Amino acid sequence: MNYQRIIEDLYRTILREPDTGSVAAYIPELSAVDPDKFGIYLTTVENENFGTGDCHELFSIQSIAKVLSLSLAYNMLGGELWKRVGVEPSGSAFNSLVQLEYDAGIPRNPFINAGAIVICDILQSLLQDPKNDLLQFIREVSGLPGLDYSPEIAASERSQGYRNMALIHFIKSFGNIQNDIEPVIDLYFHLCSIRMSCAQLTRTFLFLANNGRDTRTGQAILNMSQTKRINAIMQTCGFYDEAGEFAYTVGLPGKSGVGGGIVAVHPNKYCIAVWSPRLNRKGNSQRGMWFLEQFTTETQLSIF
Amino acid sequence: MNYQRIIEDLYRTILREPDTGSVAAYIPELSAVDPDKFGIYLTTVENENFGTGDCHELFSIQSIAKVLSLSLAYNMLGGELWKRVGVEPSGSAFNSLVQLEYDAGIPRNPFINAGAIVICDILQSLLQDPKNDLLQFIREVSGLPGLDYSPEIAASERSQGYRNMALIHFIKSFGNIQNDIEPVIDLYFHLCSIRMSCAQLTRTFLFLANNGRDTRTGQAILNMSQTKRINAIMQTCGFYDEAGEFAYTVGLPGKSGVGGGIVAVHPNKYCIAVWSPRLNRKGNSQRGMWFLEQFTTETQLSIF
Amino acid sequence: MNYQRIIEDLYRTILREPDTGSVAAYIPELSAVDPDKFGIYLTTVENENFGTGDCHELFSIQSIAKVLSLSLAYNMLGGELWKRVGVEPSGSAFNSLVQLEYDAGIPRNPFINAGAIVICDILQSLLQDPKNDLLQFIREVSGLPGLDYSPEIAASERSQGYRNMALIHFIKSFGNIQNDIEPVIDLYFHLCSIRMSCAQLTRTFLFLANNGRDTRTGQAILNMSQTKRINAIMQTCGFYDEAGEFAYTVGLPGKSGVGGGIVAVHPNKYCIAVWSPRLNRKGNSQRGMWFLEQFTTETQLSIF
Amino acid sequence: MNYQRIIEDLYRTILREPDTGSVAAYIPELSAVDPDKFGIYLTTVENENFGTGDCHELFSIQSIAKVLSLSLAYNMLGGELWKRVGVEPSGSAFNSLVQLEYDAGIPRNPFINAGAIVICDILQSLLQDPKNDLLQFIREVSGLPGLDYSPEIAASERSQGYRNMALIHFIKSFGNIQNDIEPVIDLYFHLCSIRMSCAQLTRTFLFLANNGRDTRTGQAILNMSQTKRINAIMQTCGFYDEAGEFAYTVGLPGKSGVGGGIVAVHPNKYCIAVWSPRLNRKGNSQRGMWFLEQFTTETQLSIF
Repeated sequence: MNYQRIIEDLYRTILREPDTGSVAAYIPELSAVDPDKFGIYLTTVENENFGTGDCHELFSIQSIAKVLSLSLAYNMLGGELWKRVGVEPSGSAFNSLVQLEYDAGIPRNPFINAGAIVICDILQSLLQDPKNDLLQFIREVSGLPGLDYSPEIAASERSQGYRNMALIHFIKSFGNIQNDIEPVIDLYFHLCSIRMSCAQLTRTFLFLANNGRDTRTGQAILNMSQTKRINAIMQTCGFYDEAGEFAYTVGLPGKSGVGGGIVAVHPNKYCIAVWSPRLNRKGNSQRGMWFLEQFTTETQLSIF
Repeated sequence: MNYQRIIEDLYRTILREPDTGSVAAYIPELSAVDPDKFGIYLTTVENENFGTGDCHELFSIQSIAKVLSLSLAYNMLGGELWKRVGVEPSGSAFNSLVQLEYDAGIPRNPFINAGAIVICDILQSLLQDPKNDLLQFIREVSGLPGLDYSPEIAASERSQGYRNMALIHFIKSFGNIQNDIEPVIDLYFHLCSIRMSCAQLTRTFLFLANNGRDTRTGQAILNMSQTKRINAIMQTCGFYDEAGEFAYTVGLPGKSGVGGGIVAVHPNKYCIAVWSPRLNRKGNSQRGMWFLEQFTTETQLSIF
Repeated sequence: MNYQRIIEDLYRTILREPDTGSVAAYIPELSAVDPDKFGIYLTTVENENFGTGDCHELFSIQSIAKVLSLSLAYNMLGGELWKRVGVEPSGSAFNSLVQLEYDAGIPRNPFINAGAIVICDILQSLLQDPKNDLLQFIREVSGLPGLDYSPEIAASERSQGYRNMALIHFIKSFGNIQNDIEPVIDLYFHLCSIRMSCAQLTRTFLFLANNGRDTRTGQAILNMSQTKRINAIMQTCGFYDEAGEFAYTVGLPGKSGVGGGIVAVHPNKYCIAVWSPRLNRKGNSQRGMWFLEQFTTETQLSIF
Repeated sequence: MNYQRIIEDLYRTILREPDTGSVAAYIPELSAVDPDKFGIYLTTVENENFGTGDCHELFSIQSIAKVLSLSLAYNMLGGELWKRVGVEPSGSAFNSLVQLEYDAGIPRNPFINAGAIVICDILQSLLQDPKNDLLQFIREVSGLPGLDYSPEIAASERSQGYRNMALIHFIKSFGNIQNDIEPVIDLYFHLCSIRMSCAQLTRTFLFLANNGRDTRTGQAILNMSQTKRINAIMQTCGFYDEAGEFAYTVGLPGKSGVGGGIVAVHPNKYCIAVWSPRLNRKGNSQRGMWFLEQFTTETQLSIF
């Protein structure tokens, strides 16, 4: 498969179409980004790399990082995790409180904000030095020892984070936050502040295409069963209430972020990352969605 | 892979565990079934067959048939279909009216009752002799010329079908039913009345594992893209509000019915059907779910 | 109190203001009405009468009639009635199915469509010849022996009644409709088809201002306790999800209809009826609401 | 009317019936109260007083105080207030977040927690020294210069106040809290911490039965129109989702608190207060509801 040619062809095709999305504007760190940025990167499980456009430029990966916090918590806690958070798609917006009220504080899945906050609470209980230990884990998985939280983004997120503060207080009112609110929400805001490039993203998430193992060291980050399960959750819950649409049009497990990034995984084949800041009305990268749909059509590679 | 041995081993293991589910009792045709029935059948895309237990006994496939009506409507109407029904998981019970009210009569997906009824309305508009033509299509796909609707089950469904009558009137109040109510709901109740065995089910649904082509005649029932998309919808929406759980534990696209049947598809590999009448509290076959979870664990074959 | 002068002054004042509402258009019998019609009538418990404008012209009283069916059912069944329908405001639209789903088929109150349908089911069980007996009751209460159902309006309502058909099937699916659907919904559509003038309305509903007794014959239609309770329900539930607004601005128990009529009661003082076909966005008569607000301000007469 | 005899008779009758409610236990200050306390007090607009039982014992009036903060805010801001909070019954629990999500941060009414918090935000903007000025207002209205906040109750409320913290953050995320969260929620928790006896309550709330004027000084606390409107809101929204039930069985505007107190007003006649700590499952005093129902039946005095 000539991935490089396909990627470049689609990249040019999509650049010619007007981008009808709009950039997330709730914090300056997102609204200040050049909205025309567009990068694509693909890494195969054989460690071959293909990319184009702004694929080496750092951007705020936002919710994509929730896959990493979940991986660490799942690895440490195992199936017990699922007493605290579900695995069902939410059927409503990413920051809805309605579902929490009906389900008495158990978030529908670990990728909506409520669920990611509960995962942070679990890590807060499990880790010695949570903020540092989580960062260390991400550095190891990504092979990027210099990777760090962005204090500016974390502070901006917090300053606009009334909805997330509402979520964590609401969940705690049901007893599903076990630590004090402050360190947990601080961990959450820092998690969302990480910046990576498309090339770094595929490198970081490639273990999910490789049965949980680092393709270069062979080291297991998750076991095979855990890996399949995280992929399944990305498939059904990775795109807020557009998860079905993504499964339908793209057919790969993946996770998007409000910064315009999307990571998708083809088990046993590759990890692909796309970045374009303008979002469709569901909050997922407009061009990113277009690219991945056409890419899987073109390559006839989807898990279905 | 020694499918026969794995199937038989798991069959025996599961038979030893007490079945904590309960049989659907809303119509006599379902409540009268021996609750201890348990059958499994697997057919590979190379037309190899493996099975055990009550795998050749007929049972009411109920909602599993919705995949067939969707296949026919999608084949005839193409992407226009998705203006009338969504592809997102519902996040609530299979017969909920709440979502319809918020979404102004557009069902979340074609597998909840509301969505399947809209598909019947589409077929009612597209087909010359809808009830007969749909049956003919199912006979062809299944290679079972003697297959027929069960008038008894259809009549029983209708006699208890107040919720479905509420759904169709409600959808029509939003303008998303275009024909008279009577023939559409009659088509729907007949669709749900079909009976098959596990062996017949795998034979019928094998095309979904084979890129849309009949494995014996090579004839295309759906094109490759359509097939992938139906698989994607089964993955995200095939198990009511347990779709995420099924993706998480089993990792295959599939569809369940209230009669205790489950069909699942491993693209490019096989189709598998399980039948055991007792349902878990989400309305899916208890033993069927257990079997498929252990089967994909044992074979290490899931799409993730 | 010079009611006649106050009524006429306000009538002229309001006629000068542009009417921002819009006429209900879902059936021809409503949409064909001259939207500029405006009538007011007031009858005191001493049988004094005051009126102006189109106060003697017949119009479709629609949901206002639900107070009469409730009165008859409550009189016959007593407190048992409240096992089948609640007395709480609905907090959502008059024909919402959402609440029914959460409350398992028990309508929140007898004035939303769902509740009025349950009341019709109760009358269907209690009366010998329900449609005729209900009409007879209304004739007696109103002192209008020639009053009749409008077959045209009833037929029109039915032809557009998908939402109501959805409601009755939905309620029956929960077991809270005990008769066959057809006669019950037929009774409901006929109930909504009655036509009266403002002058006839005040005459009919005056017993609610008079502790349940006919002001001319002294005969008890309801006892005092029942009367107070129906007034209380009109106060909290008589205006769909604008009940609080009506209590807040007008301060009298009342009931509105989609034909543009409003009846309100000042216990021990008077009954007042207003008719103006254009509705505000909550479905209540725009000019009717304005008039009643200013009337109770002007007269300083509210129950609060 | 021999109020004293009726009150004493009903008091004895109700004491003989087992109290099936249960005391609010979420803070020690409420759970430590003797659950058998039962007091009743009535003050007429002619300043006659009647009472029995524990009518002079202080208890935590909790949400009853929300009528006072509303009165002050309404008096200062006038009709502008209703852009920030509605006047419709909520149709759901007193601390639900669901409605807020649908209505974009505008609470349904000023008596659910969300609404009372918005009122505190309004006072925070309007008053120089909000906590002190509000207290001063309540002291004046009640004629109790020694009345004070209970720092213990306020601190307890805060320590258990995750749901309220969720509410205020959620409302602020919609822009309907204009001040910093801390002083507003602090004002709210202090407001809820006030303690009064039944006798003090009737004295304090008597102005609502007297067209807004203090019965002893003749001074206007609210004007007549404002008074009627607050009574109307108490009528439709004063008892959480039991408001319709209270209107139906009691027929007076009123407000309850989780401490077991209820205040009700008969315009132009009297104010009555009841206290009994055990609550029914809707969160209103069990014996208080029983007493008021029987009292208005006995006296045949309701506003309907």
